[in-house]
Amino acid sequence: MEDLLKRRFFFDQSFAIYGGISGQYDFGPMGCALKANMLAAWRQFFIMEEQMLEVDCSILTPECVLQASGHVERFADLMTKDVKSGECFRLDHLIKNFLEKLAAEKNATPELKAECQDICVKLDGMSKDEMANILKKFNMKSPTTGNDLTEPIEFNLMFGTQIGPTGLIKGFLRPETAQGIFVNFKRLLEFNQGRLPFAAAQIGNAFRNEISPRSGLIRVREFTMAEIEHFCDPREKNHPKFVNVKDTKMMLYSACNQMDGQSGQIVAIGDAVASGLVANETLGYFMARIQQFLLKVGIRPDRLRFRQHMSNEMAHYACDCWDAECLTSYGWIECVGCADRSAFDLTQHTNATKVRLAAEKRLPEPKSVDVTEAIPNRPAIGKEFKKDAKSIIDALAALTLSDLQTLENSLNETGDFELTHAGGTAKLTKDMVSVKTATKTVHVEEIIPSVIEPSFGIGRIMYSLLEQTFRMREGDEQRCYFSLPAVVAPLKCSILPLSNNPDFVPFVKRISSELTGADVSHKVDDSSGSIGRRYARTDEIAIPYGITIDFDTLKEPHSVTLRERDLMGQVRIPLDEIADVVRRLSVGKSTWTEIEAKYPKFEQQEASSK
Amino acid sequence: MEDLLKRRFFFDQSFAIYGGISGQYDFGPMGCALKANMLAAWRQFFIMEEQMLEVDCSILTPECVLQASGHVERFADLMTKDVKSGECFRLDHLIKNFLEKLAAEKNATPELKAECQDICVKLDGMSKDEMANILKKFNMKSPTTGNDLTEPIEFNLMFGTQIGPTGLIKGFLRPETAQGIFVNFKRLLEFNQGRLPFAAAQIGNAFRNEISPRSGLIRVREFTMAEIEHFCDPREKNHPKFVNVKDTKMMLYSACNQMDGQSGQIVAIGDAVASGLVANETLGYFMARIQQFLLKVGIRPDRLRFRQHMSNEMAHYACDCWDAECLTSYGWIECVGCADRSAFDLTQHTNATKVRLAAEKRLPEPKSVDVTEAIPNRPAIGKEFKKDAKSIIDALAALTLSDLQTLENSLNETGDFELTHAGGTAKLTKDMVSVKTATKTVHVEEIIPSVIEPSFGIGRIMYSLLEQTFRMREGDEQRCYFSLPAVVAPLKCSILPLSNNPDFVPFVKRISSELTGADVSHKVDDSSGSIGRRYARTDEIAIPYGITIDFDTLKEPHSVTLRERDLMGQVRIPLDEIADVVRRLSVGKSTWTEIEAKYPKFEQQEASSK
Repeated sequence: MEDLLKRRFFFDQSFAIYGGISGQYDFGPMGCALKANMLAAWRQFFIMEEQMLEVDCSILTPECVLQASGHVERFADLMTKDVKSGECFRLDHLIKNFLEKLAAEKNATPELKAECQDICVKLDGMSKDEMANILKKFNMKSPTTGNDLTEPIEFNLMFGTQIGPTGLIKGFLRPETAQGIFVNFKRLLEFNQGRLPFAAAQIGNAFRNEISPRSGLIRVREFTMAEIEHFCDPREKNHPKFVNVKDTKMMLYSACNQMDGQSGQIVAIGDAVASGLVANETLGYFMARIQQFLLKVGIRPDRLRFRQHMSNEMAHYACDCWDAECLTSYGWIECVGCADRSAFDLTQHTNATKVRLAAEKRLPEPKSVDVTEAIPNRPAIGKEFKKDAKSIIDALAALTLSDLQTLENSLNETGDFELTHAGGTAKLTKDMVSVKTATKTVHVEEIIPSVIEPSFGIGRIMYSLLEQTFRMREGDEQRCYFSLPAVVAPLKCSILPLSNNPDFVPFVKRISSELTGADVSHKVDDSSGSIGRRYARTDEIAIPYGITIDFDTLKEPHSVTLRERDLMGQVRIPLDEIADVVRRLSVGKSTWTEIEAKYPKFEQQEASSK
Repeated sequence: MEDLLKRRFFFDQSFAIYGGISGQYDFGPMGCALKANMLAAWRQFFIMEEQMLEVDCSILTPECVLQASGHVERFADLMTKDVKSGECFRLDHLIKNFLEKLAAEKNATPELKAECQDICVKLDGMSKDEMANILKKFNMKSPTTGNDLTEPIEFNLMFGTQIGPTGLIKGFLRPETAQGIFVNFKRLLEFNQGRLPFAAAQIGNAFRNEISPRSGLIRVREFTMAEIEHFCDPREKNHPKFVNVKDTKMMLYSACNQMDGQSGQIVAIGDAVASGLVANETLGYFMARIQQFLLKVGIRPDRLRFRQHMSNEMAHYACDCWDAECLTSYGWIECVGCADRSAFDLTQHTNATKVRLAAEKRLPEPKSVDVTEAIPNRPAIGKEFKKDAKSIIDALAALTLSDLQTLENSLNETGDFELTHAGGTAKLTKDMVSVKTATKTVHVEEIIPSVIEPSFGIGRIMYSLLEQTFRMREGDEQRCYFSLPAVVAPLKCSILPLSNNPDFVPFVKRISSELTGADVSHKVDDSSGSIGRRYARTDEIAIPYGITIDFDTLKEPHSVTLRERDLMGQVRIPLDEIADVVRRLSVGKSTWTEIEAKYPKFEQQEASSK
């Protein structure tokens, strides 16, 4: 399969003529069309059908944003270096490979085998010190040179750069697209006329400086993500459309299953939410929709499961998290994450900026509450601080109850208070601000929304899909093809004149122009070579339908042969109808079974490719 | 207009809650949909119609690639710094602003004015020293602080970073998408079965670390480009489809016009190529196609021109270069470049990698030629150099005629030769290699293709389009709208029930689901507010068509009102036909004039927005 993907340029290593860089790939015409079709299907399935707000945000992100989100401090993998050659190894991969090799040795005792296996299972949740101890205990060396290794080092996976000519603004390439949505929350809420719930979505590239990327498209340094952030009231995580999906059967591999060493179980998502296995309806709704999407683009249902994060691998702020995993030759691969991130992100950015990222919710009935607030003396502040005044007044309005108590105490005790605001700090005196508590009737309450986040790794889905749909013809291992559904296939149709007889040319032109008019992407293959050999070539690039023009086409009433890729059945179709038939097949408005029932079978045997 | 673009979140500054970064913008739902529609139209117009090979290449690019392309050395702007504050200014902008201000002063003599103007015109082609002299002569200071300025500094506009954990591989964010196509040339040529001409295309982000970006979407630090590289035989730059476009009238602003202080002239592109003004048919063909595309998405023909590069601003390797410029409030803005880059890029990468990026062309008849080549003794080389052998043999095959002479002389004089190859250097002796000249019959010749490059700045086209289509209603300056063509409008249609009468709800649902089925993006606005006010709101986001459901809709035969945005004409259309009518309008299969002729006019006056 790797050979076919390179040979027909689905994708290949970037900058290969310069020796290449590991973890970077270029998509050729076929990979690019597959990716574009997958993204178009995603946009249709999620953004259009669910009326999400799509955004397209900057990739270069200043340090302060990623400090607030926690990425500067925590977005790191542990590595160890060869002390002599400087070669870097990702620590968990190194330990795992070492122990697997050790356990496989002939003289390994059952106790040693059990210990190795136990460590490998727990590796994901281990701390730096625990791993350092294992490194020492087994006296691990560099697998390539046998040299000593350094102590574990935390290596931040973000690519750093400087923004602007002064070199003073530090920035990073975004490691995920989500933060762009969070920092635009206020604008999006306004766009949605202040109402919750709503979802925003973004398709774009993200970057991670992987320590030693090796697994093809699975672990790469730049990749396309499609992320959704669904903002909702934290007390109302039910979903109006959950009823539509509640009977969807899904393979759920729960944290309990994993701890108990069991395999996953097939459960209806409605039951999983009812039993509390899946945290809430909205999370369950998106899990079902993720499954529907993956099946639609061609992932095999028997090679798809949803794995729940164990408590030690889940981010500390998340309530619940399930990964859609696809089975490939690399094992089960996380392709889509679906997490309830609670109010973590909006809270972090609110704390960092003092801009309240919150929504207002109308109360069922007005209520009286004691409201404590800082009352600014605007003229006095304006006179003293001029252009900083607005930023100071905003900061006062954003103070929490405990901040307000500190303010009041400070004013009472020292007569002034040092306030931090967006433009710096300011010393406020008693004549500029006071703290008052009053009973007010309020009609709305302020809530910081919870976020449910489905996050798709497009490259990983594509790779899993290519592996899962790769087939060889029975009895002819030279003839390989990808059984991709028409919706994502790079091209929908081929046009093959039987020979280079000039009488066929006007028919080729006519069909090609009719297919263009019907928005059906296609390819004319008028090269020499038997029809069987040309079918084999179009099979390799996953073209689902092939139109053959032969000598019968020249006779009235004109007709052509239409062939389907997977079963190689052929039917005879009138020339006038062919473009519309292929269009309907391509967009899923007809099935091949319907077409076979409607039109006469064409019986001629497909010639061998030899 | 700026206000409307922010308020309805077409786009706005990135990371604004953190104070923002200049030169970075986020697209909101409306801007994002406009951009997606424009890219879809581009893909259809160029990639599909011309059967181009689309690729999607890495953004992170190792230094060696950009060294070969010349970007490491030359992709720089001149700047000067405030010696005290460190603030940076782009030198040409600083000089231009200073001189314009100087010339506008009351006591400016006619001689001074003329001098200022003369410098401004020549600024684009000036060297570092020339600019330094002007800085000194006029004793220019920092415009913000009045402090002294440094000597001009060359500032490379590429964002640098490190790839991988060792910090040893230097990389840059690509400053253009083109290089990704050039380094994949061999794969693309193979994909095209070795045949010339062919075109490859790429849509993607590029990054430039602008010194002081200030002009909204025009000068930004990250942006989306759509680039085409058309590879052809350097001696055959005619184009089979040129005949289809030769009568296209275009506003051409030639280098001569510019030097003579004249304005541009409207010329048929066929005449421009025939007279030699435009270098060749392929360049002319793409210029005409660029114009067709820009007009299709809504650029006004009277605000579009093609400006030829002057010889001192053109890259030294280019034969001819024309920029499609759109008139905006910032003046004429380069939106698309169209250059004949000759064989420069492929030659540079061939020299750097020793991988020959060339095509083979079948000769009309075989010919006999004297071929000089290095004949390697493979066993001897293999034995001596082991894994480097392949790289050495490749390097021998890539030697030029003069290299071969040096090799032969060296072998004869000293008995050995030091060869540089991809893996280092190797000392070859007489028993490992010899140089032979023999007469051979050849059927093909090798050519390094020329490249014609149309390069689109998507953000700049979007901004120009928004400015050029911004309108105010006569007599009501509060009512603004964008007269965007349906093909790029963010949403194609609105559905407006006259009031919140529950009887309207089933009709809203039915029309919405029919429009979804017909792939027409739309928005239901069932908020309160007069119908006029709601029309005004949908006009603001450029929705071209509005369907109103009123009390007549409830009566049989059911019907609705359809309104067109620009002229505000309304017609009455049967409910059964509405989805198809709007679909046909949206994809350009019907015109509004046809619809007005076919259906009865609806006469009710549109209420004011007040």
